[in-house]
Amino acid sequence: MDPESFRRHGHALIDWIADYHAGLGDRPVQPPTHPGDVRALLPSAPPQEGEPFEACLADIDAIVAPHLTHWQHPRFFGFFPGNALLAGVLGDMASTGLGVLGLSWQSSPALSEVEEVTVDWFRQMVGLSDGWRGVINDTASTSTLVALMCARERSTAFSLARGGMQGEERRHIVYASAGSHSSVEKGALLAGYGRENIRNVPLDERQGMRADVLRSLVEADIAAGHVPSAIVACVGGTATASFDPIADCAGIAREHGLWLHVDAAMAGAAMILPECRWMWEGVEGADSLVINAHKWIGVPFDCSLYYVRDEEHLVRVMSTNPSFLQSPVDGEVRNLRDLGIPLGRRFRALKLWFVIREQGVAGLMARLRRDLANAKRFAAVVETTPDWRVLAPVDLQTVCLRHQPAGLTGEALDRHTRAWADAVNRSGEAYLTPATLDGRWMVRVSIGALGTEWPDIEALWATMRRCAAEDMAEALG
Amino acid sequence: MDPESFRRHGHALIDWIADYHAGLGDRPVQPPTHPGDVRALLPSAPPQEGEPFEACLADIDAIVAPHLTHWQHPRFFGFFPGNALLAGVLGDMASTGLGVLGLSWQSSPALSEVEEVTVDWFRQMVGLSDGWRGVINDTASTSTLVALMCARERSTAFSLARGGMQGEERRHIVYASAGSHSSVEKGALLAGYGRENIRNVPLDERQGMRADVLRSLVEADIAAGHVPSAIVACVGGTATASFDPIADCAGIAREHGLWLHVDAAMAGAAMILPECRWMWEGVEGADSLVINAHKWIGVPFDCSLYYVRDEEHLVRVMSTNPSFLQSPVDGEVRNLRDLGIPLGRRFRALKLWFVIREQGVAGLMARLRRDLANAKRFAAVVETTPDWRVLAPVDLQTVCLRHQPAGLTGEALDRHTRAWADAVNRSGEAYLTPATLDGRWMVRVSIGALGTEWPDIEALWATMRRCAAEDMAEALG
Repeated sequence: MDPESFRRHGHALIDWIADYHAGLGDRPVQPPTHPGDVRALLPSAPPQEGEPFEACLADIDAIVAPHLTHWQHPRFFGFFPGNALLAGVLGDMASTGLGVLGLSWQSSPALSEVEEVTVDWFRQMVGLSDGWRGVINDTASTSTLVALMCARERSTAFSLARGGMQGEERRHIVYASAGSHSSVEKGALLAGYGRENIRNVPLDERQGMRADVLRSLVEADIAAGHVPSAIVACVGGTATASFDPIADCAGIAREHGLWLHVDAAMAGAAMILPECRWMWEGVEGADSLVINAHKWIGVPFDCSLYYVRDEEHLVRVMSTNPSFLQSPVDGEVRNLRDLGIPLGRRFRALKLWFVIREQGVAGLMARLRRDLANAKRFAAVVETTPDWRVLAPVDLQTVCLRHQPAGLTGEALDRHTRAWADAVNRSGEAYLTPATLDGRWMVRVSIGALGTEWPDIEALWATMRRCAAEDMAEALG
Repeated sequence: MDPESFRRHGHALIDWIADYHAGLGDRPVQPPTHPGDVRALLPSAPPQEGEPFEACLADIDAIVAPHLTHWQHPRFFGFFPGNALLAGVLGDMASTGLGVLGLSWQSSPALSEVEEVTVDWFRQMVGLSDGWRGVINDTASTSTLVALMCARERSTAFSLARGGMQGEERRHIVYASAGSHSSVEKGALLAGYGRENIRNVPLDERQGMRADVLRSLVEADIAAGHVPSAIVACVGGTATASFDPIADCAGIAREHGLWLHVDAAMAGAAMILPECRWMWEGVEGADSLVINAHKWIGVPFDCSLYYVRDEEHLVRVMSTNPSFLQSPVDGEVRNLRDLGIPLGRRFRALKLWFVIREQGVAGLMARLRRDLANAKRFAAVVETTPDWRVLAPVDLQTVCLRHQPAGLTGEALDRHTRAWADAVNRSGEAYLTPATLDGRWMVRVSIGALGTEWPDIEALWATMRRCAAEDMAEALG
């Protein structure tokens, strides 16, 4: 495809995307797709000769879009807001169009320096001190894995330069809230700690980690001859958007030399609102933290911001310096490859840059406040409706709830919860995510898609009540 | 930005990208940027109020493009071809525009199934048997890290479910060619093996790993009570595009129960040409392999294809199954999150799908053959020019060379090599990468940018000779 054909097809694609966004509300949020449906529409072998590009674009419309769960839909209440602000979409398109890679500063100077500056802008936006340095990773799973590798290397006094984790005679221990995201356990397992060396700290009634138990566990491990290595604390937990006590964790970490990693993947966005910063009070005492700009903020996926207090330590764990990557300016520059797992890097800062500039800090703040207000308003409606219960504090934009008619408990309640939630999703009218809380199923309503206004929440609520009533009627009938 | 503004700005951006590609040849390949130049052009704090989007687009032109090393430039001969075919650029734009995430099959069915099918198309294109299953990672660094984690879990009988790497009493050993890519050592270190447990196997005169020495090392480690865990073998080494003996490695791996990972990040592309498949003879005996579709093939970064023989093992190492990710169809579908480190995933298969369809297998083959022929032709020119030497076999598209006038040796030769290579890069006329070979600096000319035709290579050659002569004159003068 030459540049002139690209111009023609590109305009067609832009028009398609504009129409897609304008018409999102008319699509079912979750498609009526069965496993294998899409595969059955595709040839099982690649084409030997090229096809006209029009055929590719047509298949976006015919094969792809009808079989997507639409994350940008105004009635998407699943998982978390995975927003793609259109200014950010254009920033990402520019990145792909430029087709440059950041292996080293010299391999694309603007890629490195725009990232350095915009990640620092974001640091200022969430009120972190200038003692933090940041870098863009793909996801929080990766950021947390990197954090745990850094913790491991600190508590083992750089075992990677010697016999590795397998050379350690004492056990190095990771502590995380029992409600922490699955990526925390996964990261600890992949970093080589082993499941026996992960302590799940129990939760208090607000679903936050109990700092008193954390302290006891750390002290017991020290008494047993183990080495407490890392604490992963959460700001905005996955299930209920709960908060671990960061200041207490930081105190324990400092006292016993542990690495404190703060997982603010989702809720970090809210820290641009001064009225929310109590949620991570004490964060300056952490060693690392992750905030996903690709969630509520609206930078198109992937853009996970990973901040550390000691960049030299990160470089020491992650750096490589083969001859083919050396350049005459190495002493004067920051080479992004030394700050994460991949060597090659996209120009991901462009989309962050465009989002912050087009929205302004004020624009981002206004939208987050809209969503916080909608969540509180919705929780109030649910709470005052017979047989419906809100199950956890609504400090952020997630409302955890159940339809719990009198007499319905245990397994029967679980069946009902999953049944009506699945019915909502199958209806295509809205999409939400069931999850467990204290061993029982509940439903998370995660508010904050870009297009979600109060009438969308009213529509969801109507669908929820209908599906719950229908399931009750069916179960009784 | 609403969809109508997106349409307007999107058309402007498409036009800018089309013009950028059409005019690439007129830009300096490497910019005359000094460290800090870009940072100095940016405000140090984020804007409180939003800016008109035109300002963002204008800065792509004013701030970004003048400070990039242009990987898509026809006279880019650095590192490796990091090609972005324009059909793939549009595929990636469609992905960003759709803004969907693949956390689970249900969270976007088409994302999962188009990836499954297109990755299988590519498997067929490179002649691998249907015993391989593939998935898209970001980079080969990540794919190799995943491979080494899988190797670790096999040789430790799933230590992650117990005490982790730190619970191991015996040492688990990784073997790699002394010329292997820096990502191999980095992966082994991050996976917790430790530097003392990485064996660098020496090279033969063609820069391939010596299988006889590999066998001796494995046997010596077994005799010492260690556990040989993994071999990483390379198809198309970084420095000279050399080949490790895959069949021999596979034999040793099978005999002693090691994991064999094949790093074909760069050269895997050439395996779509039947005449090149001798280079990885024996690959069916490997456990895992990585081919970067984002290099020579031309799928825009990032698109690293990671294939395994035993997908269940990969899932066992990587899977997580928290309640909020469970769905009613889990028994019937493949959840991509279970096949790699990140939980969230872009719809990266779209760009691979578009590239294969728009080019056809035949179109991709024709371009790779053009580049192979150009490399051989260039090597012949260099070899027959007084004082110039080709230093390694030219089986692929990389030509390793030196300007080596009589009497110039040792440190003086190194100084000269780096000086003229740096002068070429500073000229902006072409870009290439110095590297070391057998402890001495040389220059890699990596041919294969999309726009590189023979006249571009002639232009590079003229620049090289001029810069080398000028440096000699300066050194003498």
